[in-house]
Amino acid sequence: MLSKAKVRFIKSLQVKKYRLAEQCFVVQGAKAVREVLASDFKVDLLVGTPSFFQEKLAAHKASEVIEASEKELTAVSSVETNSAALAIVRMKPAGRPVIPNDNFTLVLDDIRDPGNLGTIIRTADWYGVPLVLASEETTDLYSPKVINSTMGSFLRVAVHYGKLDQWLSTVNIPVYGAFLDGTDIHKVQFGKAGLLVIGNESKGISPGVAKWVSQQVTIPRIGKAESLNASVATAIVLDNLRRS
Amino acid sequence: MLSKAKVRFIKSLQVKKYRLAEQCFVVQGAKAVREVLASDFKVDLLVGTPSFFQEKLAAHKASEVIEASEKELTAVSSVETNSAALAIVRMKPAGRPVIPNDNFTLVLDDIRDPGNLGTIIRTADWYGVPLVLASEETTDLYSPKVINSTMGSFLRVAVHYGKLDQWLSTVNIPVYGAFLDGTDIHKVQFGKAGLLVIGNESKGISPGVAKWVSQQVTIPRIGKAESLNASVATAIVLDNLRRS
Repeated sequence: MLSKAKVRFIKSLQVKKYRLAEQCFVVQGAKAVREVLASDFKVDLLVGTPSFFQEKLAAHKASEVIEASEKELTAVSSVETNSAALAIVRMKPAGRPVIPNDNFTLVLDDIRDPGNLGTIIRTADWYGVPLVLASEETTDLYSPKVINSTMGSFLRVAVHYGKLDQWLSTVNIPVYGAFLDGTDIHKVQFGKAGLLVIGNESKGISPGVAKWVSQQVTIPRIGKAESLNASVATAIVLDNLRRS
Repeated sequence: MLSKAKVRFIKSLQVKKYRLAEQCFVVQGAKAVREVLASDFKVDLLVGTPSFFQEKLAAHKASEVIEASEKELTAVSSVETNSAALAIVRMKPAGRPVIPNDNFTLVLDDIRDPGNLGTIIRTADWYGVPLVLASEETTDLYSPKVINSTMGSFLRVAVHYGKLDQWLSTVNIPVYGAFLDGTDIHKVQFGKAGLLVIGNESKGISPGVAKWVSQQVTIPRIGKAESLNASVATAIVLDNLRRS
């Protein structure tokens, strides 16, 4: 059973301030929790239903294990129903990102919507992009909404927050940026390595970041929508990058 | 000023049952409301701030016009802030969909997430796809969340709900379906017309619909994510369709 203190603690981690102070975050749902247990992330607390613990899984990896009912689990979760498991996971120390010279890196200039960020990380994982550089204004990776919408991909894609122009000033590979008036992505030869900058949902790429873009690229529009959702645009460009 | 009765009426339209009974739905935000006024949709009620009405717009199109404060507008809206305008718009009679023989049509087999449906309609509009056929279980087009995430594209893309297998049984053009083990979309010659079936977020395409698919197609995976978000997958396939 979950004590009142534990319930309070788990719920407090929905707020960024407390996540930062505690250096940990919540992972919800049986599938994601199984993946965390199989990863090299440190699990401080594992909460699961009796039937969840009947599975053969690495529960011993968790510093603390508590059995709870579905009702208790759903009550502390931010998702509508959580019928099986929840883990409190320790953040990894960020360190300095090493931008690969032989792969693509995503650069997010102020992505504000948590669903977009989570979906972008999931798509980066699908296309084998190991690193995401995010501006300091980009929404927090560790919020429950972002973690949930990555569908486990936060385990495989490293996300670093910092000053984009400082990072971009150091690279010697092409920097592509998604704009509304660049070269048609169907006609660009992307090569094997580079960075891809995606801008804010309504304002696009900021001038301070745009000046580091070596090639502006554009998704061809056949119809009449004014723009595309940021996570959709990222996915379309990644698919074109991987085709080259 | 908005009367209590109007406030109640507007809020009631967040619920599908009342939308169906009244045959109308809510459009929120200055940009979307401007687009509705410029379209052939019938506007029953237009609510706007004094500064919104200072713009030259077709406010005379609305059967009823009410001036309100930002605070009043936000109070009746489902979005966090609505600082300018809201419209109550009449649904168009659905009629029978005419599946074009010279363009692509999207077929949605049980898309449940409102954000996904809205984003798919927006992307269809970008790629010039005029028609979406949705299974009866697909989430309601007219919910505020869906209408908002279409970013105005619901005005240009017709969405019909009905029995997919009945519609699919009548077509003589290719029916593509997004699966995890079909032909690589980078290698498919899509031609100029066809239908593209997208399945449910967790279960994929149902057997009753899958049997009408003439070619299974797959987005190539380079990394390790198990799947892609449904709206992202739709966008990637549409981009490939339009490249052929």
